[in-house]
Amino acid sequence: MEETLDDVNDLNAEKATNSDQIKHIRIGLIGAGASGLALLRAFEKIRETNHVIPQIVCYEKQAECGGLWNYTWRTGLDEHGEPVHGSMYRYLWSNGPKECLEFADYSFEEHFGKSISSYPPRAVLHHYIKGRIDKSNVQNYIHFNTVVRWVSYCIDREKFTVTVKDLKKDTMTSEEFDYVVVASGHFSVPHIPYFEGLDKFPGRVLHAHDFRGADEFVGKNLLLIGSSYSAEDIGVQCHKYGAKTITISYRTRPMGFKWPSNMKEVPLLIRVIGRTAHFKDGSIQENIDAIILCTGYLHSFPFLPDDLRLKTYNRLYPSNLYKGIFWLDNPKLIYLGMQDQYFTFNMFDSQAWYARDVILKRIILPTRKEMEMNIREWLENEEKVVGKYDAIDFQAEYIRDLLQYTDYPTLDVQHVAKLFKEWEDDKDENILTYRDKTFPSVITGTMAPKHHTHWIEAHDDTLETYLNEHRTLSNPI
Amino acid sequence: MEETLDDVNDLNAEKATNSDQIKHIRIGLIGAGASGLALLRAFEKIRETNHVIPQIVCYEKQAECGGLWNYTWRTGLDEHGEPVHGSMYRYLWSNGPKECLEFADYSFEEHFGKSISSYPPRAVLHHYIKGRIDKSNVQNYIHFNTVVRWVSYCIDREKFTVTVKDLKKDTMTSEEFDYVVVASGHFSVPHIPYFEGLDKFPGRVLHAHDFRGADEFVGKNLLLIGSSYSAEDIGVQCHKYGAKTITISYRTRPMGFKWPSNMKEVPLLIRVIGRTAHFKDGSIQENIDAIILCTGYLHSFPFLPDDLRLKTYNRLYPSNLYKGIFWLDNPKLIYLGMQDQYFTFNMFDSQAWYARDVILKRIILPTRKEMEMNIREWLENEEKVVGKYDAIDFQAEYIRDLLQYTDYPTLDVQHVAKLFKEWEDDKDENILTYRDKTFPSVITGTMAPKHHTHWIEAHDDTLETYLNEHRTLSNPI
Repeated sequence: MEETLDDVNDLNAEKATNSDQIKHIRIGLIGAGASGLALLRAFEKIRETNHVIPQIVCYEKQAECGGLWNYTWRTGLDEHGEPVHGSMYRYLWSNGPKECLEFADYSFEEHFGKSISSYPPRAVLHHYIKGRIDKSNVQNYIHFNTVVRWVSYCIDREKFTVTVKDLKKDTMTSEEFDYVVVASGHFSVPHIPYFEGLDKFPGRVLHAHDFRGADEFVGKNLLLIGSSYSAEDIGVQCHKYGAKTITISYRTRPMGFKWPSNMKEVPLLIRVIGRTAHFKDGSIQENIDAIILCTGYLHSFPFLPDDLRLKTYNRLYPSNLYKGIFWLDNPKLIYLGMQDQYFTFNMFDSQAWYARDVILKRIILPTRKEMEMNIREWLENEEKVVGKYDAIDFQAEYIRDLLQYTDYPTLDVQHVAKLFKEWEDDKDENILTYRDKTFPSVITGTMAPKHHTHWIEAHDDTLETYLNEHRTLSNPI
Repeated sequence: MEETLDDVNDLNAEKATNSDQIKHIRIGLIGAGASGLALLRAFEKIRETNHVIPQIVCYEKQAECGGLWNYTWRTGLDEHGEPVHGSMYRYLWSNGPKECLEFADYSFEEHFGKSISSYPPRAVLHHYIKGRIDKSNVQNYIHFNTVVRWVSYCIDREKFTVTVKDLKKDTMTSEEFDYVVVASGHFSVPHIPYFEGLDKFPGRVLHAHDFRGADEFVGKNLLLIGSSYSAEDIGVQCHKYGAKTITISYRTRPMGFKWPSNMKEVPLLIRVIGRTAHFKDGSIQENIDAIILCTGYLHSFPFLPDDLRLKTYNRLYPSNLYKGIFWLDNPKLIYLGMQDQYFTFNMFDSQAWYARDVILKRIILPTRKEMEMNIREWLENEEKVVGKYDAIDFQAEYIRDLLQYTDYPTLDVQHVAKLFKEWEDDKDENILTYRDKTFPSVITGTMAPKHHTHWIEAHDDTLETYLNEHRTLSNPI
C-alpha cells in the first residue's frame, strides 16, 4: 500500500507523542557499578543516535563508579559512617576468563588497543569497565557520594519517592520517579555466622568482605570457613604470598581442588577453644592465628519497604522477578544483577538492554498471570540444575532469552558457556595454574596472549606492570 | 482555707484527667543502652508507686540491653548486615573510677553485696547496669533485634511515625508516637580519616571501633593515631599484653603521659610508604605492622530526617538542645547522652529523670525564645572552658542544674567532680598504675577496697576472677 502524506504525518505525530512521553519519564537508578552502568550505557547508545531518552538520576554511594570493582583500604564503615561497599582485596586477579565477561559492544582489544591475557588483575578490569563509560556522557547522570536512604511508592500517583543523603553536604533530599532501578549489588553485605568460641578466640576474626590482602597473614596459620569463590581465592592468595598453613572448613562438601601441601579442606568448624579449632569429624587444628569467614553475602536493601524488597538467597533465579528483572508486584521496580553469577558484565548488559526497552515501551510486559507462569517455568528449570555445567547452561539460556528481544550486539552465549566449562576443568586440573591459560575472545575471535609472568609468581598486580610487555621482577612482600 | 468536698472532687477529677491523658501518651525510645535504660528506669520508679505512666516502646538493635557495654567479637557489620554497634574490646577495664558513674538509686554495694575496687573490667560494669534493670519490669518494654529505619513527624497531627525492622523476622512495621527519644549513643560510628599511603600499607589498618583485643598484636610494632581515650587505652593495653612498640601520633598536642619505654608520642602522620610511617616533624618509624586509627566517632542518626537530626561534633554542650536534651525546633524529640562525657551513667540518669518529668508535665518547658537564650548562655560558658578541670566543673554544673528539678536521689555532684580531678592527676602521675587507686563511694561513703591484682598484671578480665576475693594467677596469652 502506498504511503500517503497523511500517513506520514500520522507517523510523525505518533513519534513526536512518544518522544514527548519518553522525555517525561523519570528513572531513579540506585548504584553505578557494573549493573547500573550497563543501564546508563544502554540508554546512551540510543541517545547517541538522536533518540529521546528518559530523565535518569543515578545515585552512587561511592566517590566513583565501578561498584565492587573499586578497591578501598577501608573496612566496616566508610569515611561517612556508611557500610563499606567494597569487598575487593589487593592482589585479586580475575577468577574467571575475561572472555566470559567481555562486553559485546566494547571489546578488551578496543579498550587496551591490544589483546591481553585471559586473567587480568582487578585494576585492569576496573579500567575496562570505566573505559566504556568514560568515552560517553554517562558520568553526567551520576550523583556520587549519595546514598539512598528510603524508597516509597504511591499507588494513587504511580510514583516512587526516593530519599537520598548527600554524604559530603550532609543533607537529605527527595525526588519522584516513574521507575526505580535497584542495581546496588549483592556482594557487599556479609553473611557472618557464629561459631562457638569465636567470641574468645585470641586472634583476628574477619569476614572475606573485610579481607584486604594476604600481607598481614604471612607466616600465619589460617582457618577459612567456606567452600565457594571467596574461600578458594583468599586461600590460594594467602598461599601465594606466604601464609604458613591454610585450613578450609566446609559445611556440606569440599571444593576438592588439588591443594598445595600447606592447604587442606576439613569438615565444618564446631568450636574454637583458645587457638585450637575443632571440626565435625573430631579432627582439630592447633595454633590458628586468624579465622576468615568466607561465608557469603546477603541480599540487603535497607532502603526498601517490605512490599518492594527482594528477599532471596543467592541463586540463579531469584523469585518474584519477571525475566529476573521486574518486581512482580510492581514491574516499575527493576532489579539488575541480583542473580548468582557465572556470567557477569554481559549478563548485566543483557538485562539492562531489556529493561531499557521495557521502559521505552519497545517491549510490552505481559499480564501478571503470564509473568507468574513464566517465573514458575524458570524456577522449575532451576530446580533441575545439577552441577556446574548445568548451572552454566541455565544462565546461558537465561541470557540468550533476554538478548533475542533487544538490539544488543550479537553475543555467542553458547560459546561463552563452553569457555566457562573449560575454565571449570582447568581449575579442577590445577587451582594454582588455571589463570595461566588463555582463551579466544568471543567478540573479536582473537586468541589471548599468555601473560609475561605466571600468576603464582606475579606479586605485583598493578595495571602498569600488567600491561608492560615484558616480564618484570615480582615484588615479593 | 478548709478543703470542701467539691474541692476534693475537683482535685481527684483533675488527677483522673491527668492519669487518663498520661496513659494515652506514646513514647518511642531508640536504644536500650545506658541512656535508654535510664529513661525506662525513671518511668518505672514512678510506676512502682502506682502512678500511671505513658506507653513506652523501646527499640534496640542488639540482642540484649547494655548498649556499648555489650562485647561482641563482630566487627563491621553484624549477623543481620547492620553496622555493629559495639566498640568494646576484650581486657577493657573502666578508665575512670566507678565512683564517678555510680547510680544514686542503685549503688555498686547494693548490686554486688559488697564493696568492689574502683576500676572494674567491662563485664563487671555491664553486670551492674543490667542488675538495676533485671530487678524491674523494664525488659518488657524493649523490642530487641529491632533497628529503627526511619522517623518522620507530621506537624498537623503532632505525631512521629517510627518505622522499624525486626531483624529476626526480616519484616518492617511502623508505629505512631507523641514523643521520640533518641538514645542511640555516639561512640558507634567511627570517624576514619585518610592518610596518604594507607591504601597500600601492607598490614592491617583498623579503627579503634574494630579493635577487639591486643592478642593479635603481641610482638608487633603498632602505630596509633589519636590523642584521646581510645589511643591512650588501646596503647596501654597493647603494652600490657606484649606489643613490641607503640607509636602514638597526635594531630594537635600529645597526651603527655609518662609512657613506658616502648611507647612514645610523635606528631601527626603525613604518609606511609611501605611499612614506614613519616611524621610531620620529619621523623620516621619503620617496620610498622598495624595501624590503629583512634580518631573518634561521629554523631550519626541515619534514621532521622534533616529537620530532626542533631548535627554536632563531640562537645560538652551540643547546640540546639534545650537542657542538652530537647530538640529546639521540636521539643517532643528528646536526645539523651549526646554530650562529650566525663560523667556518664549518672548524667544519663539526670537527663532521663528530667525528660520524664517534662513528658509528664511535672516540668513545663519555657517558650522557644527562652530556650534559645538558655542554650546560648550554656554555649557561652562552654566557650570559657579551658583544660580538664574546667570541663569537669562545666559538666558537673550541667548535671546539678538538671537534678534540682527532679526527685532523682541526692547526688553530690561536686564530690564526683573532685574525684574526677584526682583521677586526672593519678593518670598524669602514672598511666600504668592509676587503675590501682581507690575512691570512696559518693553514694554510700564506703571506701573501695584495693583489687587483689595490680591492673598491669591482671590479664584475666572475667567477672568471676574479678569478684574472687583472692589474687589468681594471671593468664598471660
